[in-house]
Amino acid sequence: MLPPEVRSILEEMRAERIRGASWLAMKGAEAYLVLAETLEGEELESALREMRTEIPAVNRTMASLYNLSRFIPITDKPEIVRAKAEEFIRLAEEAKREIGNIGSELIDENEVIITHSFSSAVLEIFRTARKKGKHFRVILTESAPDYEGIALARELEKLGVPFEVITDAQIGLFAERATLALVGADNVTRDGAVVNKAGTYLLALACHDSGVPFYAAAESFKLHPELTAEEVELVERPYARQGYRVRNLLFDVTPWRYVRGVITEFGILVPPKEI
Amino acid sequence: MLPPEVRSILEEMRAERIRGASWLAMKGAEAYLVLAETLEGEELESALREMRTEIPAVNRTMASLYNLSRFIPITDKPEIVRAKAEEFIRLAEEAKREIGNIGSELIDENEVIITHSFSSAVLEIFRTARKKGKHFRVILTESAPDYEGIALARELEKLGVPFEVITDAQIGLFAERATLALVGADNVTRDGAVVNKAGTYLLALACHDSGVPFYAAAESFKLHPELTAEEVELVERPYARQGYRVRNLLFDVTPWRYVRGVITEFGILVPPKEI
Repeated sequence: MLPPEVRSILEEMRAERIRGASWLAMKGAEAYLVLAETLEGEELESALREMRTEIPAVNRTMASLYNLSRFIPITDKPEIVRAKAEEFIRLAEEAKREIGNIGSELIDENEVIITHSFSSAVLEIFRTARKKGKHFRVILTESAPDYEGIALARELEKLGVPFEVITDAQIGLFAERATLALVGADNVTRDGAVVNKAGTYLLALACHDSGVPFYAAAESFKLHPELTAEEVELVERPYARQGYRVRNLLFDVTPWRYVRGVITEFGILVPPKEI
Repeated sequence: MLPPEVRSILEEMRAERIRGASWLAMKGAEAYLVLAETLEGEELESALREMRTEIPAVNRTMASLYNLSRFIPITDKPEIVRAKAEEFIRLAEEAKREIGNIGSELIDENEVIITHSFSSAVLEIFRTARKKGKHFRVILTESAPDYEGIALARELEKLGVPFEVITDAQIGLFAERATLALVGADNVTRDGAVVNKAGTYLLALACHDSGVPFYAAAESFKLHPELTAEEVELVERPYARQGYRVRNLLFDVTPWRYVRGVITEFGILVPPKEI
């Protein structure tokens, strides 16, 4: 049995609408820290066994949750759980910084970068590029129906990066005005497909049609060691407009042939890749 | 000088957010009928000369307005203006019916048709196919930010056609579940590009990637005899979300290489075409 505090963290993770795979992984690590505070011995072991199922089940599209649940060993010793959860968090923070470093090198002076939805890895790349004194412009989608794009617009405003917000349907019109596309990834499958906010595939197609290089940024814990593109389970959240049910699959799958590279903390993976 | 009644029709045409090229053309023809009621002689002639500029200026992307303004001769005789405006309306109605006939032949039993935005020509095709006793399903976009898709959903409900509404960003996810794509067109350029609601190009790309045939339906008065794809002027309407200006170009341009055919009242034009 999982303690109520852990249950409520899982609940919060399931309810989250805006934030993606990185946030979920951090929140999941936090759940393990709470577990280490609350239980020990056989109770801890049995709870950890339950977490192997519960954590990935929060969102099956998220490799980060799958990898986190396998990063924490099943043990009766709380101090091991605490140490491993802390290590996961530290590695994730380092990974994000390194992606900022590597990704920002792709940005040339006066680059026009198009992105979709909100990715904390992409934001880190923008932040690092700004620190390096680079000048660039961003085209970003509002990203209906939850409008994560507006949250990104706010961050860009703080960084002093000029930007334009577009509707999702204008991705095709604006892709050809960009010189580089950068998106996050909630999952990179074993066969190199990028699973990300629905609409990412359309951006990749439009970039392909206009010859604009398309990159995804993802910490290595988002690389799924087992899943293939065909097996990705697409999560849906209820949404209605003027009384009509509107389908709302959160993610789509961009095949590797449209991806120039995946920016990880270890460098840029180029297709075809096998992890 | 145009009479105030005509000015106010032009104003209504400029303000219209939802309805497309066919509605605008009908409204424009109505303006000519009012002109024929109100003026005669030299005053009429001078007003008609003004309309040659004013009517296309309502929306430069709409070939229908361009063609309408050239269909009505510059004359001092109100009865000629009335007769030609009535002829335009009658031809347009016949064209719509014939497009329904021809287009519905493309729909096979159990077809899954994906569309974007609201096209009265596409709706006519659905209506005729239903009359012919065909069974099919429709996937349609909500079409943000004005949600024309919801208006189409209402019409499909009346026709008893099963449908699913999707967000615009899911076009890629659902194109591969469709067996046929049908969209309207506000304009078909001399080089065969389809100008239609922004997002149409993305649907065409996704259909191309999944091998789904993509057709546009357009009365012949939407074929522009002069304009090329590169010269299309893209109209923008102000739109904001949570205090941020959001770009809102209404149309995008789908190159002919992604279009299987343009359904007109004279038959299906296949690229490459020259009018």
